[in-house]
Amino acid sequence: MAALFRRSQNLFKKWNSYVDISFAPSRSMASKTQVGFIGLGNMGRPMAMNLLKHGYPLIATDIFPDSCKELQGLGAQILDSPAEVAENADRIITMLPSSPNVIEVYTGPNGILKKVRKGSLLIDSSTIDPSVSKEMAVAAEKMGAVFMDAPVSGGVGAATSGKLTFMVGGVEEEFAATKELLNCMGSNVVYCGQVGTGQSAKICNNMLLAIGMIGTAETMNLGIRLGLDPKLLAKILNMSSGRCWSSDTYNPVPGVMEGVPSAKNYQGGFGTTLMAKDLGLAQNTASNTKTPIPLGSLAHQIYRMMCARGYASKDFSSVFQFLREEESGQ
Amino acid sequence: MAALFRRSQNLFKKWNSYVDISFAPSRSMASKTQVGFIGLGNMGRPMAMNLLKHGYPLIATDIFPDSCKELQGLGAQILDSPAEVAENADRIITMLPSSPNVIEVYTGPNGILKKVRKGSLLIDSSTIDPSVSKEMAVAAEKMGAVFMDAPVSGGVGAATSGKLTFMVGGVEEEFAATKELLNCMGSNVVYCGQVGTGQSAKICNNMLLAIGMIGTAETMNLGIRLGLDPKLLAKILNMSSGRCWSSDTYNPVPGVMEGVPSAKNYQGGFGTTLMAKDLGLAQNTASNTKTPIPLGSLAHQIYRMMCARGYASKDFSSVFQFLREEESGQ
Amino acid sequence: MAALFRRSQNLFKKWNSYVDISFAPSRSMASKTQVGFIGLGNMGRPMAMNLLKHGYPLIATDIFPDSCKELQGLGAQILDSPAEVAENADRIITMLPSSPNVIEVYTGPNGILKKVRKGSLLIDSSTIDPSVSKEMAVAAEKMGAVFMDAPVSGGVGAATSGKLTFMVGGVEEEFAATKELLNCMGSNVVYCGQVGTGQSAKICNNMLLAIGMIGTAETMNLGIRLGLDPKLLAKILNMSSGRCWSSDTYNPVPGVMEGVPSAKNYQGGFGTTLMAKDLGLAQNTASNTKTPIPLGSLAHQIYRMMCARGYASKDFSSVFQFLREEESGQ
Amino acid sequence: MAALFRRSQNLFKKWNSYVDISFAPSRSMASKTQVGFIGLGNMGRPMAMNLLKHGYPLIATDIFPDSCKELQGLGAQILDSPAEVAENADRIITMLPSSPNVIEVYTGPNGILKKVRKGSLLIDSSTIDPSVSKEMAVAAEKMGAVFMDAPVSGGVGAATSGKLTFMVGGVEEEFAATKELLNCMGSNVVYCGQVGTGQSAKICNNMLLAIGMIGTAETMNLGIRLGLDPKLLAKILNMSSGRCWSSDTYNPVPGVMEGVPSAKNYQGGFGTTLMAKDLGLAQNTASNTKTPIPLGSLAHQIYRMMCARGYASKDFSSVFQFLREEESGQ
Repeated sequence: MAALFRRSQNLFKKWNSYVDISFAPSRSMASKTQVGFIGLGNMGRPMAMNLLKHGYPLIATDIFPDSCKELQGLGAQILDSPAEVAENADRIITMLPSSPNVIEVYTGPNGILKKVRKGSLLIDSSTIDPSVSKEMAVAAEKMGAVFMDAPVSGGVGAATSGKLTFMVGGVEEEFAATKELLNCMGSNVVYCGQVGTGQSAKICNNMLLAIGMIGTAETMNLGIRLGLDPKLLAKILNMSSGRCWSSDTYNPVPGVMEGVPSAKNYQGGFGTTLMAKDLGLAQNTASNTKTPIPLGSLAHQIYRMMCARGYASKDFSSVFQFLREEESGQ
Repeated sequence: MAALFRRSQNLFKKWNSYVDISFAPSRSMASKTQVGFIGLGNMGRPMAMNLLKHGYPLIATDIFPDSCKELQGLGAQILDSPAEVAENADRIITMLPSSPNVIEVYTGPNGILKKVRKGSLLIDSSTIDPSVSKEMAVAAEKMGAVFMDAPVSGGVGAATSGKLTFMVGGVEEEFAATKELLNCMGSNVVYCGQVGTGQSAKICNNMLLAIGMIGTAETMNLGIRLGLDPKLLAKILNMSSGRCWSSDTYNPVPGVMEGVPSAKNYQGGFGTTLMAKDLGLAQNTASNTKTPIPLGSLAHQIYRMMCARGYASKDFSSVFQFLREEESGQ
Repeated sequence: MAALFRRSQNLFKKWNSYVDISFAPSRSMASKTQVGFIGLGNMGRPMAMNLLKHGYPLIATDIFPDSCKELQGLGAQILDSPAEVAENADRIITMLPSSPNVIEVYTGPNGILKKVRKGSLLIDSSTIDPSVSKEMAVAAEKMGAVFMDAPVSGGVGAATSGKLTFMVGGVEEEFAATKELLNCMGSNVVYCGQVGTGQSAKICNNMLLAIGMIGTAETMNLGIRLGLDPKLLAKILNMSSGRCWSSDTYNPVPGVMEGVPSAKNYQGGFGTTLMAKDLGLAQNTASNTKTPIPLGSLAHQIYRMMCARGYASKDFSSVFQFLREEESGQ
Repeated sequence: MAALFRRSQNLFKKWNSYVDISFAPSRSMASKTQVGFIGLGNMGRPMAMNLLKHGYPLIATDIFPDSCKELQGLGAQILDSPAEVAENADRIITMLPSSPNVIEVYTGPNGILKKVRKGSLLIDSSTIDPSVSKEMAVAAEKMGAVFMDAPVSGGVGAATSGKLTFMVGGVEEEFAATKELLNCMGSNVVYCGQVGTGQSAKICNNMLLAIGMIGTAETMNLGIRLGLDPKLLAKILNMSSGRCWSSDTYNPVPGVMEGVPSAKNYQGGFGTTLMAKDLGLAQNTASNTKTPIPLGSLAHQIYRMMCARGYASKDFSSVFQFLREEESGQ
């Protein structure tokens, strides 16, 4: 993999020599000059709106033109490609579904790096493989730009209310400028270390989250079968060493808490498919670094089995339902 | 199993008819009359001392006479068998290593039920199979006594400082009398429901604890290999959805927290063997109730492998060390 | 557990002293005197018929009177209880669903041991916990009888055609007499060692079988998704180191082999519930002997999840269907 | 990933237009014209020697000059780079450690494709990610060459004796020419389908092998603890449904079989690291195709834990030793 990327970079070197990067306007850190935003999906749209609300003129694009309409109505300028956005803004945020999309948007034929201005700050909030973040950073550096990875924790709700947590990796000198923008969209902006560590922190958190959720679902199901009242059991766990976010904040058992997906037939929340994707990233980074993750790996497989059994679009706390005996069962 | 116990009870019925239970002095709930204590191991000894401190005259026994000496020095009366203790006290607490010991101490030839006074309150704080607790309760009821299960959470430290948590199962009318005694030894006494539910709550908590601990160890190890600082990673997890007791209170990575076993080469704390035993109980109750516990089961196997690899007496957070690459490795 | 049984035996000792065992007719090994058969379910019935076919007069019983009719029509004498069978036959075969049934039939109030003749040969072909077999052997010995465990491999088909495999544990001197009877019902009678080892061998085999079956299902599913033809993949595995009974004799993928459950919508064969039960026994013996069985344990959990998802009565090779994406899926 | 490769190919297109491919001599299928061999490691060296023995003039290269000496002594011509080999031979076999090496050797600055002759047959016997094989095939096709994947089953012994099994993927019309060469080095050459399916078949086999091996180790260990003689248990498994290659051909328990690694303190054979690598490939392909592989995934993690515990260079059957209680243990 590393070798592959290294080779790609060599090709970039050649390719880059054809790109005219002579006109590099200096990026103003504090002023509210325009900001680019690429990727206007369920998460990207409310994030971009919060930038607008904070007074930043916005230049945006998305492969689905329909995704751009709402933002256009609010005053954003819509362009045709990442390259065009890069021509017109020296601070760009990307929010994309997965590694290949990030590679395409940055290094593709109409990608950001084709037209990026020297000194630009490129912030990627997608959740992707940290090794891809590193390679994008190297490619950006070749063009005289800076790439930071800044994946988010928190769902559509947090994106809308500007309460996301950002985990940021990249050169430390650029953290202040990065934070200035991310503060418009989140309540927590944490510096994690060199480029890729934002992704690593995100992946680590979600792996432990998945383990805690399945563990909570198993435990609650076992306790109920042993005759314990679910609310009481949750209370006991939460005052003891079994306590975790999935038991005290997002309990997967219907009737234990209000306002969580388990209270709404597992609608909304964080889909099983998305959790399976993040666990796939954890698995890949673990395989690449030869790190044993026995529970993380089994959690991955359980979410994969759930996707295959019809749980793909339900909230990931529906693992409680998956493990519990079917009503009609046996 | 159920059938086996049922049969045993039938035999009890006959057997019990030979026992003279006519002289049943009424048990005084509030007064500080003498209390029996059976099982003076690492946990039982400090628990019994706290009863003494609270002014309860104590009658005690243990199969190892040496275990009784310290308590004798403090004024406790030492007798030869559970039966003798039962003859002389109508409130008895037992703290034993495992199910077979409990069966022996209650129903064996010199067991409590051989000489129990009518109306006695029998409180078992051992961690055992909830189905055994239920059988003991039925056997006690046959003799006119009341059996409550009240396993503890918290180790030798909490036992010494009187800060244990008790999870109590049994008839609700007896909870007040039970709590009066347990309050001398713990800061939390929770009523869980019918007999056996105290055990069930304990087992459920420890299963989720084991899952959270291994999950935290895997996650911290993966993060470190991906270049994250362990303290920073712990901080991020603890403010995010990966948060759990093992990450924020008992972190398994040396250097992240002070005063926990990971800061002392995994000495002290809760031994891997004990965790493996509790997970075996979880496994048994899950098998008996046909409940799937995929992560709980794998956690059990990992602690079993650790016992086989020399980690038996280290704190259960040493799973971090087990998963991490050996220094000399490869 | 051991302690529990030990105590039960102590009670037996007393109880046994009331039983008159003075008239112990010598058991004739070679002659075709009558044989007792207890447990006429799906497996027991065809097994008993094969004994009749071989000319053995049969005395039988079952808790469901309907199960006895067919055999009665063929000339077997039907009695009311195991105790009555034991009064009238000095060679008895039992074929029961699980450990509690075996305990009841041998040591219950109307059990075999209540009336067993001195010198009787008691052969249990049920699949149960080896520790229960050992306890039954001790109880039988107290009455002057011999207990052998002889669980079978092979389903209803093999029982009908007399092609079962018997794995026999018990005193070696009684193996010849045991084999004489079992040869009427099976084509393979293997001596495994002291009492309980027949069960142990059976449990070990079925655990490895379950692992091999799930492994084969995963592998075939992965290969198919990677573009391999299932028949070709099976052929390659079977000539390579991936070969196992589940790949070459009982392939779980529809269309690869004929005459196996996967060719008949997973009807017939060995039910998922039964496999889950056997894996529960493996789990228990592993927990009791503190043996790590990571894959065996996960296999157990997967079959438990399948039972909860509606696969209880399908053949255990339906795990292929369970893992494969639902047609309507995602 | 796919997108990344696609982009790389676009870059190749441009790049390739600079390469002079006008002189493309027709590749003679039957004649013994010279064959290129790249990668002279433990496996490649004996494979290349077998080609020499069959009368094929050899042109070879390796990044470690020392690896080439033996072959040079036997008459092979040693060149400096894959590109030079490609200039001088129109049938080339590559045998390399992992995906990045294959990418480098084929598409690197001195790679085969830089100088490949039109019509050349390129056979890669490395075990790598099937998606990389597919990309190499597309890149080769762009240059007018044919790429086949042909990973092997069998170790150094089989390579030396010419008894390897080759699993071949690629266009069917080229299978005959491929087989002609591979027949010199192996006794089994199986056509699996389109390019990449050779790798897929190899990965599938090794995943099932790993599952079977760990399963056999667990089962044998459990049986031994339950009092069974290991040789007898192996015999019973091998005549029953637990039978698999690991139980009947490569038993992991010392003393059960001769001539296998378990009889030689797990020296020789197939190293734990290599198995972990192959399971990593299985994991990656499963993640990419969203296929659940619960046991395969746990097998991967167990081999990873073993690598971290000092088993990296032992044969993969040493998992028996890993699971068994340490002599000094507890």
